[in-house]
Amino acid sequence: MSLITVGTMAFDAIETPFGKTNKIVGGSATYVAYAASHFVKPVQQISIVGFDFPQEEMDEMRKRGVQLDGVEIVADKKSFFWSGRYHEDMNTRDTLITDLNVLADFDPKVPDGYQGSEFLMLGNLVPKIQLNVIQELTKRPKLIVMDTMNFWMESAMGDLKIVLKYVDMLMVNDAEARQLSGQFSLVKAAKTIMEMGPKFLIIKKGEHGALLFHGDEVFFAPALPLEEVFDPTGAGDTFAGGFMGHLAATNDISFDNMKRAIIVGSAMASFCVEKFGPTRLKEINKEDIEFRIQQFKDLVSFDIELI
Amino acid sequence: MSLITVGTMAFDAIETPFGKTNKIVGGSATYVAYAASHFVKPVQQISIVGFDFPQEEMDEMRKRGVQLDGVEIVADKKSFFWSGRYHEDMNTRDTLITDLNVLADFDPKVPDGYQGSEFLMLGNLVPKIQLNVIQELTKRPKLIVMDTMNFWMESAMGDLKIVLKYVDMLMVNDAEARQLSGQFSLVKAAKTIMEMGPKFLIIKKGEHGALLFHGDEVFFAPALPLEEVFDPTGAGDTFAGGFMGHLAATNDISFDNMKRAIIVGSAMASFCVEKFGPTRLKEINKEDIEFRIQQFKDLVSFDIELI
Repeated sequence: MSLITVGTMAFDAIETPFGKTNKIVGGSATYVAYAASHFVKPVQQISIVGFDFPQEEMDEMRKRGVQLDGVEIVADKKSFFWSGRYHEDMNTRDTLITDLNVLADFDPKVPDGYQGSEFLMLGNLVPKIQLNVIQELTKRPKLIVMDTMNFWMESAMGDLKIVLKYVDMLMVNDAEARQLSGQFSLVKAAKTIMEMGPKFLIIKKGEHGALLFHGDEVFFAPALPLEEVFDPTGAGDTFAGGFMGHLAATNDISFDNMKRAIIVGSAMASFCVEKFGPTRLKEINKEDIEFRIQQFKDLVSFDIELI
Repeated sequence: MSLITVGTMAFDAIETPFGKTNKIVGGSATYVAYAASHFVKPVQQISIVGFDFPQEEMDEMRKRGVQLDGVEIVADKKSFFWSGRYHEDMNTRDTLITDLNVLADFDPKVPDGYQGSEFLMLGNLVPKIQLNVIQELTKRPKLIVMDTMNFWMESAMGDLKIVLKYVDMLMVNDAEARQLSGQFSLVKAAKTIMEMGPKFLIIKKGEHGALLFHGDEVFFAPALPLEEVFDPTGAGDTFAGGFMGHLAATNDISFDNMKRAIIVGSAMASFCVEKFGPTRLKEINKEDIEFRIQQFKDLVSFDIELI
């Protein structure tokens, strides 16, 4: 199986209570690719970068089975750049700088070699661009998952609601689910959002785990309690990458397999936050991942008989 | 087995986004007793009430196997009264009125008939009073669990730290765990608190579930995603009652059985929040509880093999 992932490949400069980076590699599609490529090959990347995006990063991705035919390189512009500062709780952050650069011109094309892919992950982007990608595909993927954010709910709600009708799953955080649905209760928010189109919904709650909804079914995956969340940047995208990577590798989109995929995604996210940027995703191997998944099992497993 | 529970029996007046009550019966020991008595008899209550506490409430408790020999009735004073208003998120609230009334004179005595009890739940009270109860017992219980709150950390930290050396388990919410330990990370907070005395720690995170720590072990129980949290008052005490009730009924304080107990406590708390006051705890039966526990199993159960 293969997975198409659409999103940013970019630079971030991050400040957390634990430290500060200069420009490091980031971007939603970067995190998705590094996470998903632990499980499935090829990962078929669609993105746009400037002349300044490091060749060695591209080489590293290729080595891991990430195809870059869909990544446009703009020779006379810089890559997208974001800079932010996290508060002590690590759940909130201030954006310091957003330089769109090449992202202002992003008009993604699906390479011929990507056609026929069964899984599509649409990273957080202008809703119209997300829709264009879907419409460029000659065969509808088995599963289309999209991410989005509050910014598009405020500036492009009409377009966003159209895209929602084309996707199978929406992946948002709790604040975004509340904003999109106008419901405070996440259970009610889930019902409202699933009426907008997606049959599946994942609500990410950061350090409080994630909820998966489908019809009347609900599944909860905790976040691993960690001594330190060093840098949460990319955790949501890494979660998405692990989730989609597992589904694509197993080619099984049953609710039971989605439960497994959400645990895999949570495990990958728990690595991501241990160091700045996608560093940890490049260091870990199969054994590390299996050990971490076992920790998730231990964390929530209980055996209870009728009282 | 039997369970001694020490705490308030009181009146509350509650405002939530869903409605408003006049004075209704509340108090930590009330909630603990109604929850625990579904599992274990007798529940041996230690509390203090005024002339105004309803006789029919006492009768209802007795019918459920709650012993009230340790409940002092003060003929010329009113019962403790608290009034509060919840914000829309239901996790934060403003206290409107606190009338200590009889609680100002609370000097709990352990009735002879309670001596020898194996389980002790110390509700949130002046730390010195909690210590007095422990010291009044002729035989140390198998398990002593205490609750406390930020108010005592600010006004009686010295006393609180002494009581902590006498108990097996502390049960607090996440903000309190952070305040007590001076650590933001809950994993670090848990280590610091367990060095203060208790071998076990439960950190309650409201709608985000609860964590159980013991040595290097950790277990996480989710809260059930509910359409509506109608009134969170007493949810923490109900959780404690279900937790202690299960442990006392099974007379097993292994970590594995504590996992089960935390799920039982979470299930009971999920009923508590469905109506004002302890109403739901009086309506539900064994089948309701078993069904709810099954929902918790379904919520977190997954089966994953090595990838």
